[in-house]
Amino acid sequence: MPARPLSRIVVVLVGTKHAGNLGATARAMSNMGLDQLRLAGPRCNRDDEALRMARSRGRDILAKARTYPDLRSALRGVHRVVGTTARTGGYRAEVSPPRALAPEIVRIAARSRVAIVFGPEDTGLVDDDLLLCQLLLRIPTQRNSRSLNLAQAVVLVCYELYLARLTREPRRLTKLASIAPVEAMFTQLEEALSQIGFLHPKNARHMMFALRRLLGRAGLTTAEVAVLRGIARQIAWYSRNAASRD
Amino acid sequence: MPARPLSRIVVVLVGTKHAGNLGATARAMSNMGLDQLRLAGPRCNRDDEALRMARSRGRDILAKARTYPDLRSALRGVHRVVGTTARTGGYRAEVSPPRALAPEIVRIAARSRVAIVFGPEDTGLVDDDLLLCQLLLRIPTQRNSRSLNLAQAVVLVCYELYLARLTREPRRLTKLASIAPVEAMFTQLEEALSQIGFLHPKNARHMMFALRRLLGRAGLTTAEVAVLRGIARQIAWYSRNAASRD
Repeated sequence: MPARPLSRIVVVLVGTKHAGNLGATARAMSNMGLDQLRLAGPRCNRDDEALRMARSRGRDILAKARTYPDLRSALRGVHRVVGTTARTGGYRAEVSPPRALAPEIVRIAARSRVAIVFGPEDTGLVDDDLLLCQLLLRIPTQRNSRSLNLAQAVVLVCYELYLARLTREPRRLTKLASIAPVEAMFTQLEEALSQIGFLHPKNARHMMFALRRLLGRAGLTTAEVAVLRGIARQIAWYSRNAASRD
Repeated sequence: MPARPLSRIVVVLVGTKHAGNLGATARAMSNMGLDQLRLAGPRCNRDDEALRMARSRGRDILAKARTYPDLRSALRGVHRVVGTTARTGGYRAEVSPPRALAPEIVRIAARSRVAIVFGPEDTGLVDDDLLLCQLLLRIPTQRNSRSLNLAQAVVLVCYELYLARLTREPRRLTKLASIAPVEAMFTQLEEALSQIGFLHPKNARHMMFALRRLLGRAGLTTAEVAVLRGIARQIAWYSRNAASRD
């Protein structure tokens, strides 16, 4: 009996340029038992080259894939976002190899929807997209040849997920909050921390990224998001109240 | 220092039809530190599509690759031959997954030259070619979608070889903060959240427990503890400042 599809794991391709990569991604997913594909702001069409590369098994996946204007909208209904990057430094301090992270992703996907996000062929994921990712993956490569073909990066990650799926029994996990309330919480927190002067234009981006990485690593439940929003609301209320007394 | 190329491992492509696969194979090899490529009876040329898929790092490998009329002649100077197959049955009784076989291949390649042989896109390796192989590899896939793209099969096998080559090197992990500063941070945070009225005797224990569980799950680095202490300090400062203006 074939293993059931890893149906709560969604592959998201951002800004893909070459149609062949759309097809090759769909085929790779079918090989490894994934079937949920989303396209965020693709720069190519599902043309003949895409169909040729998808082969028979990938065509259904390619045909069903929905297109979204950008990454944020493509993450609708997703609870956990895993970004892939070839680069180091900056916001990419904590990056795991797929082999280490795959069992955790499969465990989360037993209850929640997880997106694995792959950037465009030329640039990879840019900082604004990385901000939406709670976990980061980097495929180990030679240092002097880090840039993998997009669909090859997809097949490597899907392969690790497929093997992790085969070797691990999913453990029961609390269901995580979905992206929309988490993002609303970050907006509220950023406002509150700005009002009391913790954030200012020079450090805001850096500090919020540190908080995102930290909270993203934990994985937030709905109740925890409510606690954090409560803190943000209270800081904001206190700050407004204090100001009005001046 | 980059790991040295797996220079005694030779990738042999038999009867390849699509030039793009020649290039994508060369690029995948460069990513994973292999540089010996041989072409046995190719049915395509190293054309523009091959060069495009090879990208900069794969071009040298592609340019240096020698062409042979058939597999037997392509195995000149090779000590050990590993075939890859998607099928089962017949001569394919003893087939190993790449993860199981990669450490052995790397061990053999420390002294001897090993060939990894990949068949044509349409048929895979035929029986006459399989007869020349002493070991067989099959990449695990969904049963109803066994046929991998050629260059994707190459990257998966090369990836396993690369990781097997690396496994004795220690992995670097981010060091977590020790207990004392973490506890000091919680004390500071509890005071600050009390000062602004978020915590009160009725909810303090429950709320602090929720925060501890959440932050404990993430595992805090020293830098992250500093960020959280900075937030607590700023809330406390703001609160004192506001109070003194009453």
